[in-house]
Amino acid sequence: MSTHRPTRTLFLSTRHLVRLVQRKGLSACLSGVADRIEAGYRRWHEFDKSARVACHSGVGVIELMPIADASQFAFKYVNGHPGNPARGLPTVMAFGVLADVDTGTPRLLSELTLTTAIRTAAMSALAARVLARPGSRSMALIGNGAQSEFQALAFCEIVGIRELRLFDTDPAASAKLAANLAGQGLHVRICRSTAEAVRGADIVTTVTADKTNATILTPELIEPGMHINAVGGDCPGKTELHPGVLQAAAVFVEYEPQTRIEGDIQQMPADFPVTEFWRVLDGSAAGRSGAGQVTVFDSVGFALEDYAALTFMRDTAAELGIGEMIELVPQAADPKNLYGLLRDEPVAAAREPALA
Amino acid sequence: MSTHRPTRTLFLSTRHLVRLVQRKGLSACLSGVADRIEAGYRRWHEFDKSARVACHSGVGVIELMPIADASQFAFKYVNGHPGNPARGLPTVMAFGVLADVDTGTPRLLSELTLTTAIRTAAMSALAARVLARPGSRSMALIGNGAQSEFQALAFCEIVGIRELRLFDTDPAASAKLAANLAGQGLHVRICRSTAEAVRGADIVTTVTADKTNATILTPELIEPGMHINAVGGDCPGKTELHPGVLQAAAVFVEYEPQTRIEGDIQQMPADFPVTEFWRVLDGSAAGRSGAGQVTVFDSVGFALEDYAALTFMRDTAAELGIGEMIELVPQAADPKNLYGLLRDEPVAAAREPALA
Repeated sequence: MSTHRPTRTLFLSTRHLVRLVQRKGLSACLSGVADRIEAGYRRWHEFDKSARVACHSGVGVIELMPIADASQFAFKYVNGHPGNPARGLPTVMAFGVLADVDTGTPRLLSELTLTTAIRTAAMSALAARVLARPGSRSMALIGNGAQSEFQALAFCEIVGIRELRLFDTDPAASAKLAANLAGQGLHVRICRSTAEAVRGADIVTTVTADKTNATILTPELIEPGMHINAVGGDCPGKTELHPGVLQAAAVFVEYEPQTRIEGDIQQMPADFPVTEFWRVLDGSAAGRSGAGQVTVFDSVGFALEDYAALTFMRDTAAELGIGEMIELVPQAADPKNLYGLLRDEPVAAAREPALA
Repeated sequence: MSTHRPTRTLFLSTRHLVRLVQRKGLSACLSGVADRIEAGYRRWHEFDKSARVACHSGVGVIELMPIADASQFAFKYVNGHPGNPARGLPTVMAFGVLADVDTGTPRLLSELTLTTAIRTAAMSALAARVLARPGSRSMALIGNGAQSEFQALAFCEIVGIRELRLFDTDPAASAKLAANLAGQGLHVRICRSTAEAVRGADIVTTVTADKTNATILTPELIEPGMHINAVGGDCPGKTELHPGVLQAAAVFVEYEPQTRIEGDIQQMPADFPVTEFWRVLDGSAAGRSGAGQVTVFDSVGFALEDYAALTFMRDTAAELGIGEMIELVPQAADPKNLYGLLRDEPVAAAREPALA
């Protein structure tokens, strides 16, 4: 007889993830995920990378983002529907899976809506720690929506940002962000314009939501030595930077083939020079050339970051005893007798007891 | 304030699916899924189709198969690892999701291991009902592994097959199949060779598992008017039919770009003529030309069939009250305040009560 290998899958719902982040601490999650992302980018060549698969409709997009190394296959399901908030739904919802490459067994099914906000902010802050001027303490945060708290706290934890200048075309969004950040050791100021927020900042983060070719940052706003963290320009037809800002800067990207299509550089010629971030980490390309250079991290979100976040959440869930086991694939005693499931399977309790 | 739309996802585990099939009846599930598949192929042009995304390793493959129409997005995760049974695991494991195109909300997460066996058999039998000679009553079943019971019962239910001749290089597999089929109104005979099983059969189904370019059927075995249902030749390097069998037959496929890569026709020149099955259904192409023609359905499995099976399982689960609701994406009261989840979410029971 064949051996009975356990093939149950750990499930982390949004509530499990909330509990995990509450117990581990958001700052610890942000820095833990940043460490996993950095470790992933340092072994760039071990990953089987592909561009995402996108299904576009008139009102949004649904995407699958797969990636694998020799041990684990990961994918993320993620949508983008700008009209969702008006219907009481998040613009972006996501979940993902980790599976064993050697058998195909799914090991983890996890929510990735909250986790994506954490990994995006962790990636932004990691890039800034490498690319921004040492000693950067002030950041302008343009766009104060669902991602903004995570960006603020990641830059506080990972880069050492202590002063934030907020701007959003919706003052209620800035007020919500300021209220959420109260009492966390950050000096926060709400500004009346992008120009006011940007003036004198060490780092400028743009994380606006409109699905248009917007011009949030124009060349005259940019000061020597600034680092620009461009998060919101992340799909075809959605950009935030004036081409002149890119032209005058050193531009860093996650995975060039994807960013050429989705990033702010979609506005630039195909031969516009960019540097993949992993090259700066491994020393094969230069980062910032000096204190006066303007650097841009043209972030779109890459599957390697979801892989890193999924492994962090899996390990942290195990450490804290959070999550529950579900039966996503059969526990067949004899894998060659699938039909036997219909006869032998006890029709009893549908679920395993929860871990927590 | 935004309205609070429910965004919970119905989860059907393997145990739920077993209960669903036991209560609905396997024959009713096979014919119900076949009806959904036929309805899907009849509106072929409404689907956004793409080839599967595959991640190959030395020991197997993990694939994502997406498809969408104007209303629903579906994808299947599926692996293929021929060495798994020796480790006590199924060769193929699968699960899938249905989501709303208009918002990206995932509505159903379901096991698809058992369901894939059902949908593959339903597709085979549907194709045979259209392509085989009317009045076909006998079938040779070559390869008696995990898929074979489902093929046998689908052809009994949907095509009217009453006599089965079994052959497998492993006699234990044939004995297992015969035992599983006992008492279901089928006349079953275990044969000592493929030739013995095929001789005089109306339909020949090949559903062998070896990942090689095998030659299960050679031209001298084929008799005028036979319909060949070639299920096992379904990925690069895995075929079952001698090229001469294909050369002498009218060959029908699910989705030509995919079958050229994965099907038995991978052995044939790129201009080898094939007919997509949906064209026979809508009358834009001929099916069988006469009683003496040999027809081949070169089946590889297409995402539209998983879409059809997922919708059938979703509706049947609702009818029978089977499944449970899980929180795969946030139930945020304010979708623009994702961070608020970490403060407001009550850390209470992780799960909704099960439906059944």
